[in-house]
Amino acid sequence: MTTQAQTKQNTPTSPLQELADLLSHDMGFVNTLIIDRMRSDVPLIPQLAGYLIAAGGKRIRPLMTIAATRLFDQKSYRPYRLAAAVEFIHTATLLHDDVVDESDQRRGQASANAVFGNQSSVLVGDFLFSKSFELMVEDGSLDALDILSKASAVIAEGEVLQLSIQTKLETTLDQYLQVIGAKTAALFAAACEIGPVLTNQSKEMRKALKDYGYNVGMAFQIADDILDYQSSTAELGKSVGDDFKEGKMTAPVIFAYQSGSQEEKQFWHRCFEAGEISDDDLAHAQSLIKTHQADRKTMDLAIGYVKAAQQSLNNVPDSRLKEILISLADYTLARKS
Amino acid sequence: MTTQAQTKQNTPTSPLQELADLLSHDMGFVNTLIIDRMRSDVPLIPQLAGYLIAAGGKRIRPLMTIAATRLFDQKSYRPYRLAAAVEFIHTATLLHDDVVDESDQRRGQASANAVFGNQSSVLVGDFLFSKSFELMVEDGSLDALDILSKASAVIAEGEVLQLSIQTKLETTLDQYLQVIGAKTAALFAAACEIGPVLTNQSKEMRKALKDYGYNVGMAFQIADDILDYQSSTAELGKSVGDDFKEGKMTAPVIFAYQSGSQEEKQFWHRCFEAGEISDDDLAHAQSLIKTHQADRKTMDLAIGYVKAAQQSLNNVPDSRLKEILISLADYTLARKS
Repeated sequence: MTTQAQTKQNTPTSPLQELADLLSHDMGFVNTLIIDRMRSDVPLIPQLAGYLIAAGGKRIRPLMTIAATRLFDQKSYRPYRLAAAVEFIHTATLLHDDVVDESDQRRGQASANAVFGNQSSVLVGDFLFSKSFELMVEDGSLDALDILSKASAVIAEGEVLQLSIQTKLETTLDQYLQVIGAKTAALFAAACEIGPVLTNQSKEMRKALKDYGYNVGMAFQIADDILDYQSSTAELGKSVGDDFKEGKMTAPVIFAYQSGSQEEKQFWHRCFEAGEISDDDLAHAQSLIKTHQADRKTMDLAIGYVKAAQQSLNNVPDSRLKEILISLADYTLARKS
Repeated sequence: MTTQAQTKQNTPTSPLQELADLLSHDMGFVNTLIIDRMRSDVPLIPQLAGYLIAAGGKRIRPLMTIAATRLFDQKSYRPYRLAAAVEFIHTATLLHDDVVDESDQRRGQASANAVFGNQSSVLVGDFLFSKSFELMVEDGSLDALDILSKASAVIAEGEVLQLSIQTKLETTLDQYLQVIGAKTAALFAAACEIGPVLTNQSKEMRKALKDYGYNVGMAFQIADDILDYQSSTAELGKSVGDDFKEGKMTAPVIFAYQSGSQEEKQFWHRCFEAGEISDDDLAHAQSLIKTHQADRKTMDLAIGYVKAAQQSLNNVPDSRLKEILISLADYTLARKS
């Protein structure tokens, strides 16, 4: 991924890589904790969890927890357990998502449910979710527990809402934003808010980092939803056109459908509601999205969130780390996977 | 269920009903909390969760949390949130279990996954699980959070272990006991341990109630596993022979297989490992279990746990409630569902 990003942007290092480099010492502790807490006497658990975690996610959420702490405190060990807890919540969500979506690819390889079965994915997801709470309890901050338990409930609610509006072409942009706010942005927001909480910052700083996380999460998800109609499978690291096949209502489709002719609307209805999809339909959907500039409109939406993320850091003390977080918001739109 | 138990035992009221009557005021608060925290702006969530909860589980786990508190304190409001949290963990587990087992019946009606689909069951389970942690965080006892987060991880581990040994006829009794200790007894133990924790009792009382819960849970599950080869579907309220069809390794099968002739072992291998099950096979399995007294051996095992449960209460101060808890341990073996 880094290589592709480098080629594309012609820059030596992506902000995500810069962040990972700057916080590599901290992330060493987090990764050790992650590996340690996947252990179990039941071999299938570390096998399955390790399969997904070794596939090398970007660890962007725990990175944000560390970064949001390091903005205010250079030394605290407090964020490690909570950063690992955040990654476990995310991993549990991925495992359950892939079961729900019947996905067969994730992070450029066969998804865990495709290899180990849906049953194991459901149960190991539950295990990781429980472990995330064990980690939080060990830390002992009731504020952090409050933030992350609420975020978890919101994520599940968002996933159910997404399922409820699936294939429903009358879905509004507001409903879409509600879904991604819950299923994606809520955990980014929580991951970032933990930083000022652990370091006893003002309510203003809590809000600043929470808003940063929320808006980056929104931009991140919207960019992902554009990619699903743009990249090839090799670039994206998961199956392209998955959203299309699953009838997932995302911004590009909402914009293209709203601007579509009667004939085009019939096409969308056939693919999304009747679920009759032939081989050329994804290409046709992609061309309709281009024709109606639905991809540009979606990108504009994402840019709005990037700007909001950057502005939310205005009153945070200046530092190299803050600069990277500002660049990282832009980078959510430039990344390929 | 009560009616059947009355007929069978020829007693006016079952200990479970006595417990529910004695604690009905408390359980009113718990039930209100349960209904309240299932609320969501996403209609499918209260629909699905309500479907299962309205089907009328016995609420035995939250009852135990209340009882274990009331042994030591007549007035505290503290157990309500935690009792509701315990029931939410249990309900989330049921939802995921039914997906994993592909069950079509639960509590005498179609299971939630059969009505609402596996996808919704997975996600609403996640929602309830998150809500259980929200409730614990509101209570604010880190000890209770520790107990319940550890129990949740153990439950998931037990479920994965159960899946790993499924259809494996060489499974030992110890492995079976490890599975049910994790998937069932751990939550009973946690539900009971919370009582002395909330009321600041001695370590001895914590251990007494934890042991009581653990042993009752073991007896409860073993009795359930006997019933799956004994009752008719109407009596059990879930499909009889489910364990057989799923190749679940339970004590009756382990005992019958261990005592079986070569020919009988081949029968078990065909049904469990090859998965070739014809219409008469359940009846044949039931007769083999009777022939080898595998049901009696299993019942003896359960009786051992009942006695251990009762003995664990020896040093708990005497009260009517304690007497009911002692009878309740016996009752786990008498119940029909």
